[in-house]
Amino acid sequence: MSDGLTNGLFISIEGGEGAGKTTVIAGIAEALQAAGHQVMTTREPGGIPIAEQIRAVILDRSNTSMDGRTEALLYAAARRQHLMEKVVPALGQGQVVLCDRFIDSSLAYQGHARGIGFEDVMAINEFAINGLMPMLTLYLDVTPEVGLRRIQEAAGREINRLDLEAASFHHKVREGFLLAAEHFKDRIVVINAEQQPENVLNECIATIRARCAGI
Amino acid sequence: MSDGLTNGLFISIEGGEGAGKTTVIAGIAEALQAAGHQVMTTREPGGIPIAEQIRAVILDRSNTSMDGRTEALLYAAARRQHLMEKVVPALGQGQVVLCDRFIDSSLAYQGHARGIGFEDVMAINEFAINGLMPMLTLYLDVTPEVGLRRIQEAAGREINRLDLEAASFHHKVREGFLLAAEHFKDRIVVINAEQQPENVLNECIATIRARCAGI
Repeated sequence: MSDGLTNGLFISIEGGEGAGKTTVIAGIAEALQAAGHQVMTTREPGGIPIAEQIRAVILDRSNTSMDGRTEALLYAAARRQHLMEKVVPALGQGQVVLCDRFIDSSLAYQGHARGIGFEDVMAINEFAINGLMPMLTLYLDVTPEVGLRRIQEAAGREINRLDLEAASFHHKVREGFLLAAEHFKDRIVVINAEQQPENVLNECIATIRARCAGI
Repeated sequence: MSDGLTNGLFISIEGGEGAGKTTVIAGIAEALQAAGHQVMTTREPGGIPIAEQIRAVILDRSNTSMDGRTEALLYAAARRQHLMEKVVPALGQGQVVLCDRFIDSSLAYQGHARGIGFEDVMAINEFAINGLMPMLTLYLDVTPEVGLRRIQEAAGREINRLDLEAASFHHKVREGFLLAAEHFKDRIVVINAEQQPENVLNECIATIRARCAGI
């Protein structure tokens, strides 16, 4: 356990499809553990029963009439419960918590790309987190073209018409993340995630070390 | 159908325990129907499947670890879905919608009595309703003592220690409703519900006729 982290350290990692979040999070966790820190990686709903039940309502395919604002409120509710039951106790034990997606994903996807409104989605998410913002957020920035190509290469297939249609949505998602980064300049650091994976990881770790005392 | 109500009329009826909402709503519906209006009475979750699923998560007794803010977000989510699937279509048909509890119950119970904060609970509920406020809200005001006595008389039992403990909570609920009435002066009318039931009903109907064109 870190000597400098009696209250833990809450870091979120954000990014669109194919940005490489999973690889980066695993790499950060390994580096911090090697330096003697206790690390918990998580993503909502994270095995918390109430958050899982809420997520099941969101994902139920028979709920075709779900309104966009209902969905945004449900995501915020699941976020709250995961935060209180999983993130806060780990922080209380002095752990480093690496969270795969948090408030900024809601701002980018629902607030901006789905058109509900950035400020409105921020209001319900601020209610949900009630001041428990990550100390630092790494936004792994790739253009949708690069992100989609990576996903297709991983799946071993060609780009098709549906991918191209989806690309315009992913452009809006990226715009939303960059808007969030502008709004929360002191918290969000934009990482160029089109670099070689080892360079992306090194930049993330260097950013954490520069920003977080005790790391 | 009313000739004067091409866009319907949305009225909510609020009040604490024993205020007599059910009786009043039935009486208002009867009077308006007798005057030729189409009336729908409803209360959340109102048989809307998504809202019922959300309510089931709230009411699940095994969910003892549910955080107060998670619960408030879930109530707001169920409110949104019930509003969009049941209230809005009825208003679109020109109906009078009488809704048993709406935004002000959340403000009174969760915002004020449970201490989450009036302004905070208002923010998520304003997100949920997105401008679809009732045109008029009747708040049936009784002191908790009178309300509890009515409930006990209906159940045929004496006041006990738990009732007295509950009374202090119900005082806070009443304070919350009066705070909402102060905040939304133009929308909420406070009705003295300690009068004889026929007088309460007559005052409610007179208020609706005075406030709502076409009734």
